[in-house]
Amino acid sequence: MSAPRKTVHWILAHPQESSVNARLFREGVEFLSRDHDVHVSDLYRQGFDPVLGAADLGAPGGREGNVVDLMGAAHAEGTVPSEVREEQRKLEAADLVVLQFPLWWYGPPAILKGWFDRVLTNGFAYGPTDPETGLPLRYGEGLLAGRRALVIVTAGEDDRSIGTRGISGDIDALMFPLTHGTLWYTGIEPLDLHVVHDVDGFGAADVERESARLRTRLAGIDDETPTSPYRRLRDGEYHGTRALRADLLPGRTDLGIHRRVRD
Amino acid sequence: MSAPRKTVHWILAHPQESSVNARLFREGVEFLSRDHDVHVSDLYRQGFDPVLGAADLGAPGGREGNVVDLMGAAHAEGTVPSEVREEQRKLEAADLVVLQFPLWWYGPPAILKGWFDRVLTNGFAYGPTDPETGLPLRYGEGLLAGRRALVIVTAGEDDRSIGTRGISGDIDALMFPLTHGTLWYTGIEPLDLHVVHDVDGFGAADVERESARLRTRLAGIDDETPTSPYRRLRDGEYHGTRALRADLLPGRTDLGIHRRVRD
Ligand SMILES: Cc1cc2nc3c(=O)[nH]c(=O)nc-3n(C[C@H](O)[C@H](O)[C@H](O)COP(=O)(O)O)c2cc1C
Ligand SMILES: Cc1cc2nc3c(=O)[nH]c(=O)nc-3n(C[C@H](O)[C@H](O)[C@H](O)COP(=O)(O)O)c2cc1C
Repeated sequence: MSAPRKTVHWILAHPQESSVNARLFREGVEFLSRDHDVHVSDLYRQGFDPVLGAADLGAPGGREGNVVDLMGAAHAEGTVPSEVREEQRKLEAADLVVLQFPLWWYGPPAILKGWFDRVLTNGFAYGPTDPETGLPLRYGEGLLAGRRALVIVTAGEDDRSIGTRGISGDIDALMFPLTHGTLWYTGIEPLDLHVVHDVDGFGAADVERESARLRTRLAGIDDETPTSPYRRLRDGEYHGTRALRADLLPGRTDLGIHRRVRD
Repeated sequence: MSAPRKTVHWILAHPQESSVNARLFREGVEFLSRDHDVHVSDLYRQGFDPVLGAADLGAPGGREGNVVDLMGAAHAEGTVPSEVREEQRKLEAADLVVLQFPLWWYGPPAILKGWFDRVLTNGFAYGPTDPETGLPLRYGEGLLAGRRALVIVTAGEDDRSIGTRGISGDIDALMFPLTHGTLWYTGIEPLDLHVVHDVDGFGAADVERESARLRTRLAGIDDETPTSPYRRLRDGEYHGTRALRADLLPGRTDLGIHRRVRD
């Protein structure tokens, strides 16, 4: 008896079909498709528009309000644009979300950043509060809880520049707005990052090595858990001050303090 | 005898003319225009396309290569798209760059992220190495050195959530990919962040208070220096390992280690 087939939503942000990213994407999707249902969002090929604008804020000349409220109203009234709704459906159906992109200016390409801006709307990805505690359901809970995410990021730099105390900042810290502020905020648990370094100097053998390393990782992905999961808001460690309780990891100010387990 | 008029490039990323951002933008630009030459990039009003794509990579069906190399070739050959070239001209002319945006998923809106992706090209913003040391001219040096930047960010959250040890991460750390990885990388010196908190609950009096606070800041902007400037690559503190020298702030792993002066 095998476990039920899991569903994956793999999102790629890269303009070139000849890129290292596109190659890893094709191999990864093919590999996972053997025993998963894989839905893809190849954002460049779809022509996804990343600019949150009038279409997301309800009818032009419509009601007044700030962006958060207007997006909440569009969700409640069912006027979310169909290309956004389509992305939301794929995300809803997924057990595992894969986000794959080249590091551009120490973050995701705009086409992916805008996917977050437009798709993770008020009412779909976040919004409600816990009726018992009055706390917002976020950071570990929230409307997308129950899902896990694998972030695959390719970089021009090496593991020293974007490693601990590296000149460009630690990649875990650089990705915090995504892994913690976006994924974990909405309840999606990020797995350890999958980083590919030095990609601009890659030859065929390097791509082959990285394809193999990715397949190995994907082979175990259904049983993987993060090395150090983020803290849950509901555990009360931020209660009252919205800052981490003073007795926990006193004196430390790095973003790693928001993880539950540290060496 | 007064000092020569300075030139400002103010970049705004917000979809609504009725927003708090648009209001602060209009007042700020008007205020600075009294004694500065102010050029604006109101990205939504311009319809700026943030998606780095075929147009940035040279003629379709053109040569093969990765994105970094193709953008370098487009720069060298003068085939950079005119809307990008126009942004580069405004940036080149500026002594002070103002970047203003609402915090969306702990970073800039996609329309601004893509402005970095497309405008700060290889050969325009970064690329060369120092002929004497062989080190790349970046992190403090680079093709845009001599300019300073003011980052104005509005947030829904309060100063505790995005303060030191705050649940959402310190705003200085959240902005590191922008202030250090993007601005400082290309030689632009970021001034201390200008953060506006709790904006979603703002009434008229709050907007008025923040406009006044912004005008006060802008009044002194030409003489302002950052409280703790970032370290310069050329000072050698990362030499050999690309990580901060072990004897400097030993044991610390927060992104603040990359600043030259700390309490
Ligand atoms: C606009 C742009 C910005 C980049 N910024 C970074 C960066 O911040 N850090 C880094 O390590 N590499 C950076 N790079 C290099 C890319 O990460 C690298 O080219 C990419 O991961 C290679 O994968 P690909 O062949 O699939 O494009 C940048 C490249 C471009 C085109
Ligand atoms: C898509 C989206 C994402 C947001 N993400 C954040 C966030 O990560 N942190 C935060 O403090 N506020 C967040 N907010 C709230 C905005 O920062 C806030 O609405 C804005 O700064 C208010 O300024 P405005 O009236 O000019 O739009 C978000 C709002 C939207 C619409």
